[in-house]
Amino acid sequence: MKVAGKHYDTIWVKENDNSVVQVIDQSFLPFEFKIKSLSSFEDVYTAIKDMHIRGAPLIGAAAAFGIYLALVKYNQKIPLDEYLLSAAEKLKSARPTAINLVYAVDKQLEVIKKYDSPDEKRTAAFKNALEILETEKENCRKIGVHGLPLIENISRQKNGDPVNILTHCNAGWLACIDYGTATAPIYMAHDRGIDVHVWVDETRPRNQGAKLTAWELEQHGVPFTIITDNAAGHVMQRGLVDLVIVGSDRTTITGDVANKIGTYLKALSAKDNSIPFYVALPSSSIDWNMENGINEIPIEQRDPDEITYIQGMIAGKIENVMITGEKFPVRNFGFDVTPAKFVSGLITERGICKAKKSSIFSLFPEKFKNSVK
Amino acid sequence: MKVAGKHYDTIWVKENDNSVVQVIDQSFLPFEFKIKSLSSFEDVYTAIKDMHIRGAPLIGAAAAFGIYLALVKYNQKIPLDEYLLSAAEKLKSARPTAINLVYAVDKQLEVIKKYDSPDEKRTAAFKNALEILETEKENCRKIGVHGLPLIENISRQKNGDPVNILTHCNAGWLACIDYGTATAPIYMAHDRGIDVHVWVDETRPRNQGAKLTAWELEQHGVPFTIITDNAAGHVMQRGLVDLVIVGSDRTTITGDVANKIGTYLKALSAKDNSIPFYVALPSSSIDWNMENGINEIPIEQRDPDEITYIQGMIAGKIENVMITGEKFPVRNFGFDVTPAKFVSGLITERGICKAKKSSIFSLFPEKFKNSVK
Repeated sequence: MKVAGKHYDTIWVKENDNSVVQVIDQSFLPFEFKIKSLSSFEDVYTAIKDMHIRGAPLIGAAAAFGIYLALVKYNQKIPLDEYLLSAAEKLKSARPTAINLVYAVDKQLEVIKKYDSPDEKRTAAFKNALEILETEKENCRKIGVHGLPLIENISRQKNGDPVNILTHCNAGWLACIDYGTATAPIYMAHDRGIDVHVWVDETRPRNQGAKLTAWELEQHGVPFTIITDNAAGHVMQRGLVDLVIVGSDRTTITGDVANKIGTYLKALSAKDNSIPFYVALPSSSIDWNMENGINEIPIEQRDPDEITYIQGMIAGKIENVMITGEKFPVRNFGFDVTPAKFVSGLITERGICKAKKSSIFSLFPEKFKNSVK
Repeated sequence: MKVAGKHYDTIWVKENDNSVVQVIDQSFLPFEFKIKSLSSFEDVYTAIKDMHIRGAPLIGAAAAFGIYLALVKYNQKIPLDEYLLSAAEKLKSARPTAINLVYAVDKQLEVIKKYDSPDEKRTAAFKNALEILETEKENCRKIGVHGLPLIENISRQKNGDPVNILTHCNAGWLACIDYGTATAPIYMAHDRGIDVHVWVDETRPRNQGAKLTAWELEQHGVPFTIITDNAAGHVMQRGLVDLVIVGSDRTTITGDVANKIGTYLKALSAKDNSIPFYVALPSSSIDWNMENGINEIPIEQRDPDEITYIQGMIAGKIENVMITGEKFPVRNFGFDVTPAKFVSGLITERGICKAKKSSIFSLFPEKFKNSVK
């Protein structure tokens, strides 16, 4: 999508230098727009871990380039297989919840296993990383195509009045390569002249809604309003929301959805107010081995300092300020699980399905070992 | 309750000077503990409006002193009745949601109407303000007494393991004169040696949980953990919460509860996870004329800057920092309404009742014009 009028992806290979991958550094948005260069798998690990880049599809693509960069830097001091396995383990450990990360890294290992020399492996890893990138991008575009009719229908029912869509966190193009997941149908509707307005949850503790989603919607010219996470129930109760679309960090084959902490609360509220609650996700974020989201999905506990401190702008400088007592005890849960029963549907690159096994099977039969009753 | 070992109320008449009322200024907590002096009804208006003091019972008592201070400052330039009415209207307008404010001001007007001279009126207003203060305090103590068995029972069921109680915003003693409403049973349980642990919702946008509730629990020695508002659903889903107790800014006679924005979401989550959800309130916050919370309770929309900026501590100084884009559109809803069906019970100064008209009637029959079927 566009930044100040110029088109960007969130990740790309540096012009005229295949040994460097560049990303939009999300740490300073909306205050400053910066590009970050990554030259090693350790760089990629840190960029993911410290959330210079975040969002399941972007993390997956970046990790794939991480394996490629590991091969670029390979110095033959330790056996290649051992070296690659250790790089892979490190990359996978950068964030525990996003399944794409694991998929992308494993896919790379599988692809390069077919080649013998480090050079061949490197070339194959490069090609495959680019393929993962292009696939993620195309998947987001298709999510937009399949999700668009949901918005078109509401617009028709409202005789062209603004369609109010609530979203949580940033499942926008910044989290992906382009288009976004939750935002893809929104951008597509907006670009086709449908009147849309987005309620942007602030999304504590890292405020990805107020910082990233708001920023990218603004850059693209989509009308939006930031609210606190606490206000999502109120706006739904007062009839100010027509549709909820969120992303997913990991979805089980039964349709349970792990996503940014707080998603579950919005789902409960959507249910209580009979508002459709959709989850937009590329199938790369479905965990085909998982049945029970609440029991099985590991929930990342992040640094308490993300709650104790907040990043903001003061006197033209970006600073971290303390917003509670210094030694007050804090727990920082990164994600929660929304049970499938609260999900109206999953918007995938192959179409919309219900959040249940048989319906997911009908779109992705090849992913299931056995048929689903 | 205690601050650094010394007992404080949140509001009192200055020692040796009846023309000044003093309050704990909550604007700088938990960073700095400051006392603020109020010498006029305009001072009281500003202190309420700008939230140097907040919380329904405290606002009520302060407003009563506001009328008293208006009489202290009366200069006979305009007719007394006109002057008092204008002071009353101004005080009532300081915060639109808290019904106590209206009650306390109207009670003062009713009391002083019986006297003719400004001197007599002033003396009566002083006496009545003190009475309101003492009544609020005593009501909170009784809420503690009536709510205590809820915690005792859970403690017994858990064989003395910690009782995990989640609360939202600050319905603590800082919001009242002493004890608090939601916190009164918690302090009482803690003081009796029951092992309690409080999950403190951060409570965006003003972070009264992370700043005030956390601070007062810490001062009193009650174990607590701060979480983001978004995490409340997750901790309930994972069995980490035994009981929810919140306060109320206004409750209808049918049991609908207006409280800090986000309360509704916690109630939904408590319901979904079969966790008892109680609202602690003095009857002074019941609106005896209101039947339907969602349609009738006015919801305060506060300054968007409360979301765009946040107060924090940096390099030993309290500063306001910008935490989203400067011109990003923001809506700041102050309260929401939790429908009675999600409320397990109301803890009042007269005991616990169900959140329904007949049950409220059984505790407060004199407040109803007609009997309730």
